Amino acid sequence: MQKKAIILLSGGLDSITVLAELRRQNYQCYALSFNYGQKHNAELNAAKKIATYYQVKAHKIIDLGFAAIGGSALTDEHIDVPKSPQDGIPVTYVPARNTVFLSFALGWAEVLNVHDIFIGVNAVDYSGYPDCRPEFIRAFQLLANLATKAGVEGHKIKIHAPLIELSKAEIIKKGVALGIDYQQTVSCYSADQAGLACGVCDACRLRIIGFNEAKVNDPTHYQ
Amino acid sequence: MQKKAIILLSGGLDSITVLAELRRQNYQCYALSFNYGQKHNAELNAAKKIATYYQVKAHKIIDLGFAAIGGSALTDEHIDVPKSPQDGIPVTYVPARNTVFLSFALGWAEVLNVHDIFIGVNAVDYSGYPDCRPEFIRAFQLLANLATKAGVEGHKIKIHAPLIELSKAEIIKKGVALGIDYQQTVSCYSADQAGLACGVCDACRLRIIGFNEAKVNDPTHYQ
Repeated sequence: MQKKAIILLSGGLDSITVLAELRRQNYQCYALSFNYGQKHNAELNAAKKIATYYQVKAHKIIDLGFAAIGGSALTDEHIDVPKSPQDGIPVTYVPARNTVFLSFALGWAEVLNVHDIFIGVNAVDYSGYPDCRPEFIRAFQLLANLATKAGVEGHKIKIHAPLIELSKAEIIKKGVALGIDYQQTVSCYSADQAGLACGVCDACRLRIIGFNEAKVNDPTHYQ
Repeated sequence: MQKKAIILLSGGLDSITVLAELRRQNYQCYALSFNYGQKHNAELNAAKKIATYYQVKAHKIIDLGFAAIGGSALTDEHIDVPKSPQDGIPVTYVPARNTVFLSFALGWAEVLNVHDIFIGVNAVDYSGYPDCRPEFIRAFQLLANLATKAGVEGHKIKIHAPLIELSKAEIIKKGVALGIDYQQTVSCYSADQAGLACGVCDACRLRIIGFNEAKVNDPTHYQ
């Protein structure tokens, strides 16, 4: 029987790499994206194209009223996306975002009777978001089996974060070996409607360094 | 300084009891409700009235695209709400619902810099939902402090489930002592637009038994 997986698909560099690897292993993939009021809507358009390109079995885009909560430069129009690195956890952090995303993945996993959930977080070249760390993933793993019917009935749900210990350069090298065209992806927090990247936000900065270190030509189109 | 709390407010019997107790203790309350495609929309109208009555500091209703996932009689129009008790976890279970709700509460707690989150789940007279059990709450508690900026910075977030070990009758007796008018609340999974209850679904059944056992006159209006 074909293996099945739920995958969180942002439209960025990391999640496409996870998806390409799953498809290489012939997983049937159910992709989940979120319209959470992010300013960088180009990201969602990228996710749609990527889902089609990799022939996922289904792609759902869930509307989430994150903007009602505010508190992040990504969802709150009163907070600007910084153009230079910041100390500590930056204002682009969306409170509890990955917890909410994984919770929805968990719900969908229950409905589909799928027991493997993949998320492309990494905790090496990242922005210091608390919900990208291995200890967060482990805690969610524990929660997943207590929160669900599947868990209660003994079908263990597994949260996979295959990129968590890789550097951005390692992810890119892996992706190139998988034949990924990273031009399809949008990482920028301030991408314009056409998907052109700003080149200066934290996400762009990490991405640019990644391509440099990987010695791979950066295919990103900048504004 | 006045104590602050985030409270999940469904419009039902349990959460109003938690809110009334918090207000008695002079907490400043931030109430959070969800429009998640539930068929029983009367519940949300009740939540709004209750939030006003108890003078919460703010009441947010978050739109969630739960219906896109389906799989529950509460959100999926193809699944009927059962009119008699079922074995095991019933079809009214919404996969990962409380995980998603608490995740949003966690996000709002971060934005408001509030460290106490209250949820009115109980695991005595309940429908057997996995995400109402003490072990689920404990796991979410652990996650909360790993998932958030507040947790990383040492401000512990606490998940309170003060009703978790009470029977429905005990909750009702507590509420009556707090002066609650339970006629304001809607528990029914199939309530009509006017908020009239069906009297036969699992939620109605537990509520009716609760009033009987508490020897309190049931103020609910039935269809």
